[in-house]
Amino acid sequence: MDLIRIATVESPLTDRAAAPKQGDEGAPEATLGFEVGFAEAREGMETGDVLVLLTWLDRASRDVLRVHPRDDLARPEQGVFTTRSADRPNPIGLHRVRVLAVDGPRLTVAGLEALDGTPVVDVKPVLGSVGER
Amino acid sequence: MDLIRIATVESPLTDRAAAPKQGDEGAPEATLGFEVGFAEAREGMETGDVLVLLTWLDRASRDVLRVHPRDDLARPEQGVFTTRSADRPNPIGLHRVRVLAVDGPRLTVAGLEALDGTPVVDVKPVLGSVGER
Repeated sequence: MDLIRIATVESPLTDRAAAPKQGDEGAPEATLGFEVGFAEAREGMETGDVLVLLTWLDRASRDVLRVHPRDDLARPEQGVFTTRSADRPNPIGLHRVRVLAVDGPRLTVAGLEALDGTPVVDVKPVLGSVGER
Repeated sequence: MDLIRIATVESPLTDRAAAPKQGDEGAPEATLGFEVGFAEAREGMETGDVLVLLTWLDRASRDVLRVHPRDDLARPEQGVFTTRSADRPNPIGLHRVRVLAVDGPRLTVAGLEALDGTPVVDVKPVLGSVGER
């Protein structure tokens, strides 16, 4: 179960402590730079699309099993599977973003809280009318 | 970027061609059997929770870049990143399920279209009121 990098996040966000915890909490514009070899897989992506990105949160700790939700020490610890903590056994980030521009292998998106350099491992469309976050 | 198995899907679904394409298209009840060592990470899971499961679709093809959406040959091929095809470079499944029962390391869920034996790699709560699919 070995993931390959399909794209890399380019973002002004570099500090995990300062980054928004969710994409709708003030995340800046970001760009996805796709690796060579995925042009066919990108076919059909358009400005205005709402997509789900899966990322590999490479600065997370994989041995953390319980956290204070939102790093709020006033809240009791919970199991990581009941939180969106980046620290978890498989640190896969799940992000709902809107496509602002498509320029060949570069995709500009709104609403992405991932840090600069984060590997992207999958992109999927949002299904139905309910959205995804 | 090597994933570990946190749980395994137990389901009557064994044939990819016969399985529903989405969890809300008639998926049967399924059970997740968690691996030893994740008890703390499961703390707080309750009946009625709506969760996002990430699975590793181990019967998918990783070298497919374009597909007919929903295997419908009448529809033109699209890039896999604009479809929910299981066949894609990193075959991670994204599923929205409802918890029907919690029995120690066994979780019974509704709405899961994954096949019997599929590895589960992450569990997250749905955020906000919009749901996730």
